[in-house]
Amino acid sequence: MVFGRTVTVQTRGRSDVHDLTPVVLEAVRESGIRDGLVAVTSVGSTASISTIEYEPALVEDLKQLLEKLAPSSMHSRHSATWGDDNGFSHLRATLMGPGATLPVVDGEVLLGTWQQVILIDHDNRPRSRRVRIQVVG
Amino acid sequence: MVFGRTVTVQTRGRSDVHDLTPVVLEAVRESGIRDGLVAVTSVGSTASISTIEYEPALVEDLKQLLEKLAPSSMHSRHSATWGDDNGFSHLRATLMGPGATLPVVDGEVLLGTWQQVILIDHDNRPRSRRVRIQVVG
Amino acid sequence: MVFGRTVTVQTRGRSDVHDLTPVVLEAVRESGIRDGLVAVTSVGSTASISTIEYEPALVEDLKQLLEKLAPSSMHSRHSATWGDDNGFSHLRATLMGPGATLPVVDGEVLLGTWQQVILIDHDNRPRSRRVRIQVVG
Repeated sequence: MVFGRTVTVQTRGRSDVHDLTPVVLEAVRESGIRDGLVAVTSVGSTASISTIEYEPALVEDLKQLLEKLAPSSMHSRHSATWGDDNGFSHLRATLMGPGATLPVVDGEVLLGTWQQVILIDHDNRPRSRRVRIQVVG
Repeated sequence: MVFGRTVTVQTRGRSDVHDLTPVVLEAVRESGIRDGLVAVTSVGSTASISTIEYEPALVEDLKQLLEKLAPSSMHSRHSATWGDDNGFSHLRATLMGPGATLPVVDGEVLLGTWQQVILIDHDNRPRSRRVRIQVVG
Repeated sequence: MVFGRTVTVQTRGRSDVHDLTPVVLEAVRESGIRDGLVAVTSVGSTASISTIEYEPALVEDLKQLLEKLAPSSMHSRHSATWGDDNGFSHLRATLMGPGATLPVVDGEVLLGTWQQVILIDHDNRPRSRRVRIQVVG
């Protein structure tokens, strides 16, 4: 059985973090799938999916870490060539990967108590970002 | 068909690395699934799953790299706010992601000769860490 | 339903990047699976799968970022112990992970317009690299 849903999230960019857990749980429940996998994927090359303890201080830490690892001020051939100034956004996205696959057990997503599914939009401007939630079981 | 198993691993933290390959192979064999996927996921927000050539020198290299990228001594708003001093653990986990999905082919996990599935527990203290092995096929 | 294919890619190493999108799309079409997941996985411990806007300037940026994060000149216990000088390759691979799982929707892989699936071979020499494309739906 396969159930899929595409959701759209309004993002502000620069590794803006959004908690997707409620929409992922809702999709899994509506799927009727009791056991299997849910793959959450960002559509596009400047965003990532991961998990985190979603609270403001840690979200700020994450942004600072990404700013250290792939600074928004970095020289980028991509930015220089195309003039869109988002080379760093692409690099953060490729480094972290476009998706996360999580277990569905007894009709729920198996997550830790302090673990939420997040979208991180690395782009350098607000986006209307599509995320695919695909449940297989 | 879906088969799942939760295993518990006693970890020491600070990106402590454990070879999960034997328990993953065992779960796949018991599932009876010949072809499909196995998703290995850490339950909780301070651990990661990846693959590595599991040998002590490389495990030490990995710990040093993570210490360079997200130092345990880093200033963390999360640590400052909650007093649990594991901001770096969360950041390493979010950066690397909570799971890995691997192909099951002819009843075996398709891995390279020198490639093992690992749990990396980034937390700053010993944990009893749950890992979910979910086989779909 | 499960459909799998192993492809072999001739790589040059040092985070050499190859666009896998055409072979992934071809495998999904031949599978006949309309909705589900496709997991793309590198077989071996010195390569990664991710997505990127596949164009030469950004590929060069990615190589530079990886050279900054895990330099090929770094001291590595693994390299010192085994004399194969590819400790950095292993670390890049473990950091980025061995695979990416993407949604299959209406018989197509759901990707952004500027988003391609890539193999990144981090090894320090040319390889004949196997990649598994596993479709479940």
